[in-house]
Amino acid sequence: MAMLRSYVSGRWHTPSAEGAPLHDAVTGEEIARISSQGIDMAAALDHGRRVGGPALRELTFHQRAALLKALASHLREHREELYALSARSGATKTDSLIDVDGGIGVLFGYASKAKRELPNDKVLVDGAVEPLSRGGTFVGRHIATPLRGVAVQINAFNFPMWGPLEKFAPAFIAGVPSLIKPASQTAYITEKLVELMLASGLLPEGSLQLVSGSAGDLLDHLTGQDLVGFTGSASTAQVLRTHPAVVRHSVRFNAEADSLNCSILGPDAVAGTPEFDLFVKQLVSEMTVKAGQKCTAIRRALVPAPLLDAVAEAASARLAKVVIGNPANETVRMGALAGLEQREEVRRSLKALLEAADVVHGSPDRVDVVDADAERGAFLSPVLLKADPDRPQPHEVEAFGPVSTLMAYRDTEHAVELAARGAGSLVGSVVTYDADFARDVVLGVSPWHGRMLVLDRDDAKESTGHGSPLPALVHGGPGRAGGGEEMGGIRGVLHHMQRTAVQASPRVLTAVTGQWVTGAPRTESDVHPFRKSLRDLRIGDTVVAGPRTVALADIEHFAEFTGDTFYAHMDEEAAAANPFFGGRVAHGYLVVSFAAGLFVSPEPGPVLANYGLENLRFLTPTFPGDELTVTLTAKQITPREDQDYGEVRWDADLVNQKGESVAKYDVLTLVAKQ
Amino acid sequence: MAMLRSYVSGRWHTPSAEGAPLHDAVTGEEIARISSQGIDMAAALDHGRRVGGPALRELTFHQRAALLKALASHLREHREELYALSARSGATKTDSLIDVDGGIGVLFGYASKAKRELPNDKVLVDGAVEPLSRGGTFVGRHIATPLRGVAVQINAFNFPMWGPLEKFAPAFIAGVPSLIKPASQTAYITEKLVELMLASGLLPEGSLQLVSGSAGDLLDHLTGQDLVGFTGSASTAQVLRTHPAVVRHSVRFNAEADSLNCSILGPDAVAGTPEFDLFVKQLVSEMTVKAGQKCTAIRRALVPAPLLDAVAEAASARLAKVVIGNPANETVRMGALAGLEQREEVRRSLKALLEAADVVHGSPDRVDVVDADAERGAFLSPVLLKADPDRPQPHEVEAFGPVSTLMAYRDTEHAVELAARGAGSLVGSVVTYDADFARDVVLGVSPWHGRMLVLDRDDAKESTGHGSPLPALVHGGPGRAGGGEEMGGIRGVLHHMQRTAVQASPRVLTAVTGQWVTGAPRTESDVHPFRKSLRDLRIGDTVVAGPRTVALADIEHFAEFTGDTFYAHMDEEAAAANPFFGGRVAHGYLVVSFAAGLFVSPEPGPVLANYGLENLRFLTPTFPGDELTVTLTAKQITPREDQDYGEVRWDADLVNQKGESVAKYDVLTLVAKQ
Repeated sequence: MAMLRSYVSGRWHTPSAEGAPLHDAVTGEEIARISSQGIDMAAALDHGRRVGGPALRELTFHQRAALLKALASHLREHREELYALSARSGATKTDSLIDVDGGIGVLFGYASKAKRELPNDKVLVDGAVEPLSRGGTFVGRHIATPLRGVAVQINAFNFPMWGPLEKFAPAFIAGVPSLIKPASQTAYITEKLVELMLASGLLPEGSLQLVSGSAGDLLDHLTGQDLVGFTGSASTAQVLRTHPAVVRHSVRFNAEADSLNCSILGPDAVAGTPEFDLFVKQLVSEMTVKAGQKCTAIRRALVPAPLLDAVAEAASARLAKVVIGNPANETVRMGALAGLEQREEVRRSLKALLEAADVVHGSPDRVDVVDADAERGAFLSPVLLKADPDRPQPHEVEAFGPVSTLMAYRDTEHAVELAARGAGSLVGSVVTYDADFARDVVLGVSPWHGRMLVLDRDDAKESTGHGSPLPALVHGGPGRAGGGEEMGGIRGVLHHMQRTAVQASPRVLTAVTGQWVTGAPRTESDVHPFRKSLRDLRIGDTVVAGPRTVALADIEHFAEFTGDTFYAHMDEEAAAANPFFGGRVAHGYLVVSFAAGLFVSPEPGPVLANYGLENLRFLTPTFPGDELTVTLTAKQITPREDQDYGEVRWDADLVNQKGESVAKYDVLTLVAKQ
Repeated sequence: MAMLRSYVSGRWHTPSAEGAPLHDAVTGEEIARISSQGIDMAAALDHGRRVGGPALRELTFHQRAALLKALASHLREHREELYALSARSGATKTDSLIDVDGGIGVLFGYASKAKRELPNDKVLVDGAVEPLSRGGTFVGRHIATPLRGVAVQINAFNFPMWGPLEKFAPAFIAGVPSLIKPASQTAYITEKLVELMLASGLLPEGSLQLVSGSAGDLLDHLTGQDLVGFTGSASTAQVLRTHPAVVRHSVRFNAEADSLNCSILGPDAVAGTPEFDLFVKQLVSEMTVKAGQKCTAIRRALVPAPLLDAVAEAASARLAKVVIGNPANETVRMGALAGLEQREEVRRSLKALLEAADVVHGSPDRVDVVDADAERGAFLSPVLLKADPDRPQPHEVEAFGPVSTLMAYRDTEHAVELAARGAGSLVGSVVTYDADFARDVVLGVSPWHGRMLVLDRDDAKESTGHGSPLPALVHGGPGRAGGGEEMGGIRGVLHHMQRTAVQASPRVLTAVTGQWVTGAPRTESDVHPFRKSLRDLRIGDTVVAGPRTVALADIEHFAEFTGDTFYAHMDEEAAAANPFFGGRVAHGYLVVSFAAGLFVSPEPGPVLANYGLENLRFLTPTFPGDELTVTLTAKQITPREDQDYGEVRWDADLVNQKGESVAKYDVLTLVAKQ
């Protein structure tokens, strides 16, 4: 029988041990054997730190993003191989799409986010400059630098592709190597995934390793620069979280545990409304997709008491139409659980739930299947329960399969209270068209939730649904859900980096961050900085232009020309009564237009366009007769990897004849590389 | 003897037990006794959750900020009482200033940050709107809501005022009640502080509680909505971190442990340079302020090998001048350690260090003191050591007192490597005038540091120094330093809140967040929204104005008037060669000026001023003959607590006759309340 391989310390490792058997979820047939015997875990971590980390840190965020995008495209080309393996875990084609295409989507998502929201640099500036002194010689700013260890990613069996990819993507962008340890049951799929990723030739050696089988003494070798990202049961999370090395070195530990997520139907959503149908449809979908083996599935369906029977009836009718069996059969809508052990565990949980609940639909023991053997394959009927919401079991016992419990609530407060009894959930949903109800529930339950979906007739068509974490949004929840946060766009990247407050003079802070800071030296020369391409332009390059007098006639002319005849510009008496002006003042738009007229360099050159302005603040009014001088300084330079130009952000400081700042802002331009 | 009291469940509690004695650090005299006997810890937590939390959550961020500012002023009025008590812990006046005024400064800092950076609202929007669908009917955004539990704050003995206040301030702003448990040795100071805070009458009942003495079974009663913030030793941090309730409920746990912080002298900073003197002065100051009992003190002084002797000599000379003794004596520069036990512990650590180091200055056993008994008081001489940097002890053994170790480094790489051997530090400093060296060291060591100070002749006068955490900057470090993050401005507030990704239609997202989101309904009426005061204005109120044609003559006139004769506006042929335009286009400043002319309401009214613009992006060029229409929608309303006006942010969307967005931006205005 084939042994699953690991990829550690730069080579594929095939264990010589006999290993534990892995079975096809549909047929019960043995697929492969798994063992991590013979792997030097300390060496693997060391390889990541010594080879993978430095190679990744050589690249800028944009360069890593480009590799990630290429990797996503490469995997997309090989989807069919992955779908085929996925089916052996009991997954239907729809289930596989979530796992495979969903995972690839995370790579694309992170590539795009990194390119748009991160600098084309190796150090990430986090937040604004903090003034720390009156005189401005001592300032602070936070930077984020990649941790120098390995991101150890311990994944769950239910998403053997999406799971590793959603952890790998932010680590890779951050510049931190990954070591993936999949759950054994479906590790044969992750092995294939990693094989494809490595075969792409895109990943720097050491940036991706795989341990198939037990983690052995892996965690013993962690340091304070490593991270652990865990997805799985709350009980395993507790064991890992208290591992001596994790505790001793304050290892950054992120847990994402399955939780008793709820879906709440609004009182407005009576039978016959679009929201009633959406609620029932979503509930059934969350019960049956991946055979309910999703950390984000709906375990508790909370409905207004008067609607309980109608929901039970509609959901049962829909569940009755779900064809269960071999995913290879095209009529099948729900496949098998991941294995017979999983089925036994779900049945045990069901038994506990049934102490406080009645069956509305389905059976823990009997199921009709198509094209398969109901006993050799890990098949289970969807089971919808109904329970008294004041009993503890429905809020505490999670059956990790196609199982959900209906409960009635009295009013909004009761619904919020019941949702909170999950003691921390990854996600909740509210299905209502009443925006006030939606607001009250979302704000009420948010402290217990990492994500809240409001589903209604307006967003239903485009909604990605209750069960789908998205790369731009945080995934994780407090308390029982593990207290972690994954993805969330750049937040997930920052999780892999150390945030450091840097305190220095403006000159040194500019040197450290690569972004010009107010108070740092400016470089004026005979060459206007707009005449310099990115090749020649340097942070701090400056042009000072002016002065130009703003005459009353200019203000009146501008008012007439633009139509902006606001009284503060036109009427001395009314302007004097304004608490901020004390007399007629120039338009803000006029002074920034004059500033542009001062610093412009008219002839064709490297500056291609002004594509925006940011953080414009008018600080001192400009009165007729005032003289304006503008100082423009190159603040940040962001060459684009895939274009022959890049972005230059300029610091603009417009002052009057008294040296008072009239306006401060950032001018955004596109500038040619050569 | 006086028993220290606790303040729990709404009243002062005086234990009836005998209690443990607390001693004056200078005289050895007994000050008070301490015991938490008889406190119902579960009830105290419950009181915070049921009384304190709801009362705080009734307030907006700005209202909490106003209370915090008033509290800071109140404490400032009572500083003398605190200084007097502080001296009994062995603190000099300078030491007391750090603790008392430093703590009050954190309150002022948070009050000011919250007012400037947070909305005057109860829900905090975190980050931008995330587009989740092509059609725009399904969007996402993160919100942060206060955790519904209690922030349990376990503090260290060395800062009995600053410690509690720096944890209380961000919790209070977040809307989370605090329960303070000070270290016993100096709890008599914290008791006084809490008494003053409560006597101010400013704090909602339940928002502040105090447990003097042992924590008893406090942690057993934690839930996933509570937090623990700990400052103290790494070993205690490990015990608390693995407490069963903390682990079971994924309680948010933040540890800030003392660490082996380094200070690095640059190779340029030879004897005679300002930086050489700054390095020596700072080293001696960090050794002697608070008698070296600061988590942030310099334990490792790394200097270029050729400068080792010069530094040793200069530091010794300076140390020799430090007068040690009773803080009441005005000539005294260094007081006592917090107690005899602390001194014993420092001596034990010194013994371990001396296995690998030699004494440069001072003695573990002998000290000359002024106005005090060197044995009854907890006095210790400052001890400067010199060690081989390759030995482990100087990087692992922390003597929590006036002790530091000099070590020589070979080159930049070696200095970075040695700094990292601290395995995680709260802070490091670099003293150099060489910006390249500063950059290389800061970027090199940042993964192991929460804060890095670069000290030089430019910032020395205004620098707050190596040892001072500041409210705007993160305080905490990875690995040995506990892996935590405190303060850091609004980051510290967010630490007390749950981040939740909300997915909904724009209409519902607007209702949930209170901020208008693109795609949500707009309300047009006969009344121009600029004619509405804050009393009448609603999110979503809109004016649509235009169209206005932009003629070629307008472009030419604007160019001439402003001086902005950039070729893309003036020269058809050159503009056609530009990769973005394909022909002459209008100035960006022209189109936004015309937009202002369209949406302005000229007569005096509630809109007082346009104080800025944000996020302006030019999306489509405007060609001669294009017709512009602008839609302006009230997006966010922020009334100011202490003014009769507030801020209104407007969404501006400027489109051409084809419906293409020409520019999008936010217009910032000040609007009267009535």
